Amino acid sequence: MNAPISDQYRIETEPLDMPPRLLLGPGPSNVHPRALQAMSTAPVGHLDPSFVAVMDEVQDLLRYLWQTENELTLPISGTGSAGMEAALANVVEPGDVVLVGIAGYFGQRLVEMARRYGADVRCVEKAWGEVFSLDELRQALEEQRPAVLALVQGETSSGACQPLEGVGDLCHEHDCLLLVDAVASLGGAPFFADEWGVDVAYSGSQKCLSCPPGLAPLSLSPRAVAKVEGRDTPVANWYLDLTLLAQYWGEQPDGGRKYHHTAPINMNYALRECLRLIAAEGLEAAWKRHRESAELLWDGLGELGLECHVPREHRLPSLTTVRVPQGVNPQEVTTTLLQDHNIEIANGLGQLAGKVWRVGLMGYNSRPDNVLRLLDALGRVLDR
Amino acid sequence: MNAPISDQYRIETEPLDMPPRLLLGPGPSNVHPRALQAMSTAPVGHLDPSFVAVMDEVQDLLRYLWQTENELTLPISGTGSAGMEAALANVVEPGDVVLVGIAGYFGQRLVEMARRYGADVRCVEKAWGEVFSLDELRQALEEQRPAVLALVQGETSSGACQPLEGVGDLCHEHDCLLLVDAVASLGGAPFFADEWGVDVAYSGSQKCLSCPPGLAPLSLSPRAVAKVEGRDTPVANWYLDLTLLAQYWGEQPDGGRKYHHTAPINMNYALRECLRLIAAEGLEAAWKRHRESAELLWDGLGELGLECHVPREHRLPSLTTVRVPQGVNPQEVTTTLLQDHNIEIANGLGQLAGKVWRVGLMGYNSRPDNVLRLLDALGRVLDR
Repeated sequence: MNAPISDQYRIETEPLDMPPRLLLGPGPSNVHPRALQAMSTAPVGHLDPSFVAVMDEVQDLLRYLWQTENELTLPISGTGSAGMEAALANVVEPGDVVLVGIAGYFGQRLVEMARRYGADVRCVEKAWGEVFSLDELRQALEEQRPAVLALVQGETSSGACQPLEGVGDLCHEHDCLLLVDAVASLGGAPFFADEWGVDVAYSGSQKCLSCPPGLAPLSLSPRAVAKVEGRDTPVANWYLDLTLLAQYWGEQPDGGRKYHHTAPINMNYALRECLRLIAAEGLEAAWKRHRESAELLWDGLGELGLECHVPREHRLPSLTTVRVPQGVNPQEVTTTLLQDHNIEIANGLGQLAGKVWRVGLMGYNSRPDNVLRLLDALGRVLDR
Repeated sequence: MNAPISDQYRIETEPLDMPPRLLLGPGPSNVHPRALQAMSTAPVGHLDPSFVAVMDEVQDLLRYLWQTENELTLPISGTGSAGMEAALANVVEPGDVVLVGIAGYFGQRLVEMARRYGADVRCVEKAWGEVFSLDELRQALEEQRPAVLALVQGETSSGACQPLEGVGDLCHEHDCLLLVDAVASLGGAPFFADEWGVDVAYSGSQKCLSCPPGLAPLSLSPRAVAKVEGRDTPVANWYLDLTLLAQYWGEQPDGGRKYHHTAPINMNYALRECLRLIAAEGLEAAWKRHRESAELLWDGLGELGLECHVPREHRLPSLTTVRVPQGVNPQEVTTTLLQDHNIEIANGLGQLAGKVWRVGLMGYNSRPDNVLRLLDALGRVLDR
C-alpha cells in the first residue's frame, strides 16, 4: 500500500559534539549550568497542575524582573524577535501611526514589522551609537502624534543604552503608548516598567537571563491591554494573540486554563531556574555586576589602546562596541578568537560593519574572569 | 538616579521538582533520555560554524522523515501551532480561496488562522472521527476551486487518520496546493511528502518525535515555494516569513548565512538527537512499532469492554479515542489516573467532550510496557 521508503537523506551522524565556546557576542550568552540541568527534567503535560504552578511562578518572577505589577506578564513561546512581533501585532491596528526611534539595526526591524501589521510608520533617526533626548522625543511626539512610540533600550548593533526615565510620562501626555525593546538589556541594566510608564516591553531569554534562546518575556500595562481589548480588527497573528494567550496563562472563571498552544515545557523549566537565580542574587546586585564587568572591560580595552564607540555615559553594560583600529581586518580577529581561543565576539552590523566589534557580557557571563580571558586573548591576537 | 526596587514579586521558590508522569495524552509525549541529554549541552552561537553543521544535519534528517527532496525543509522556531501559522501565512494571500476539511478541532483552527491572513475560507465538514474520501474531496475541489486545500492527517481531537494517497494529484489537476497538518502523525504513521504530492506540511517536535515542545518541522514543495515567491503582498508575519528564514537556513551566495532571528539552539540539539534515533531505527520500523502498540492497546481496551470511537481502518496509530462507558464520569477517571498512577490521558474536546478519552502512544512512548501499564491502571480505576 505504501510507496518504498527512500534512504537518500537517512544520513550517518555522530553524537552531538559541540565546541566549548565562551559566548561574548551579542547573544546567546552561556547558559547557567543550573538552567541546563532544569531544562533536562522530563516534561509533564502543558495543562498538568504541576506545570500550571510553574507558569504562576514564572509569571511572578518575571514581574520582579520587569519591576511591574502588570497582570499580562508572560513568556512568549519564541525567541526575542517573536516577542517584538507579539508586541506590535497586538497593540498596532492597521492605520495606527507608530513612531520608531531608529539608532541601530533593531530600530529598523521594528519599522519592518510594524509595517507588516499595517502601521503608518514615522521615524526619528540618530547615528548608531547615539541616544534620543527627552526634548527630541517630545518634539517628535508633537509633530507625529503617534498611537505608539517604539524605542530600543539596549541596541546590540550600536552598544548604546537609551535612557527611559520620563519617556512614559511624555508619551501619556500625548495619548501614546510606550513600547520598549529590552532584549539585550533586561536583567543587565535597570528597568522599571511601572515607574517609567512603559506600556509594552519584551525581551529574550538568551541574553542577560542566562537561559537558552526560545522564550521572550513580555509585559503589557493596563493601558496597553485596554488598547488590545478595544481593537476593531482581530490580531493578524494567531500564535501570538495575547487575548488567547492570556486565557492559557491566567486562571479562567472555571478555575482552569484554556488550551491555546503547547507551551515549550522544558524551556519554561530553564527560564524558571534563571529567574530564581536572579531573584536570589537580587536585581540591584545583578545590575551592579553587569556594570562592574563592563567597566573592567572598558578600562582593559583602553590599556590595549582600543576605543569604545559609544560615549561612556550612554554605554550599555551588557554590550560594548569596540572600534576596529586602522589596518586591522576585523573578520580575521573574530575568526582567530573563535578558532584559537573558543571565544565568540561579533562583527559590526549595518552602519558599523567593518568599523566595530561587538562584545557582550551578559548574565552568567558577566564576570571578571571572562573579561580577563577576553582581554588576554585580544591582546595576543592584536599583538598588543 | 533609579527608583527603589520592589521586592513584591521576588517570591521564594524551591528547586524544580516535577512528578514523573507517563504522558499518554495527545502530546507532549515523554522525551527520549538521549534528547534531554543533548538538549542540556552548552549552546554555541546561532551563526557558529559548528551550529551551521547541526542545522544542515537537522534539515537532511527532516527530509528523510518527511520523505522529500524539498530544499525548503526546516524546523520553525515555535510549537506545532507556529508551524500551522507559518504554513498559512506564507502560502495564503489575501483573497485566496482556501478549502479546509474539518473533522475535528485542528480543522477548525486552520479555518481561524487562514481567515486572519485574509483567506476566503470554504469548508467541507465531517463528523469528528470520520475521514474524507477522494470522491468527496474531488467534488469539493470542483465546486470551490480553491488555491489551497488544507487537511489534517492526524486529528488528535478525533483519533482519525485522513488517507492522503491520491489527494496531491487531485489538487494539482485542480491547480491547487495541498497543505497537510501532520503534527500528531509525523514519525508515527506513514508520510510520503513527494510521493503523495503534499505541497506544504508541518508537524510538532513534541509528539511522535519524542522531543520537547518548541520546534515545528516544516517542508514546502517547489510548487509551494513558487507561490510564495510570486506573492503580490508581503507575508504578514515577520518571524515566520519563509523567504527570510530560508536565507538563514540555506547557504547564501557569499557562503554564509543571513541572520534572521536567534534559533533556539538547545531545542535544535534535542531535535537532532531525536531525528538520529529515528534514522537509526528506520521509518518503516518506527511506523510498525506505532501500529503494533496501538493494536495492543485496541485489543486490551476491548478486553476491558471499552470501545474505540473510530472504525479500525481509519484509526490513527498515535492517538486513540476511547468511548466513555455509560454512567462513568470521564473527568474523574483522568484525574485519578494522573493523581494515583502518574499517567496522563486527556478528555474529549468539542463535539467529543464528555464522550471520549484521548490516549496517545507517541514516539518513545509507543511501547508495549506503557500500553500494559495503562490498561492495568484503567482496569483498576474503572473497576473492570
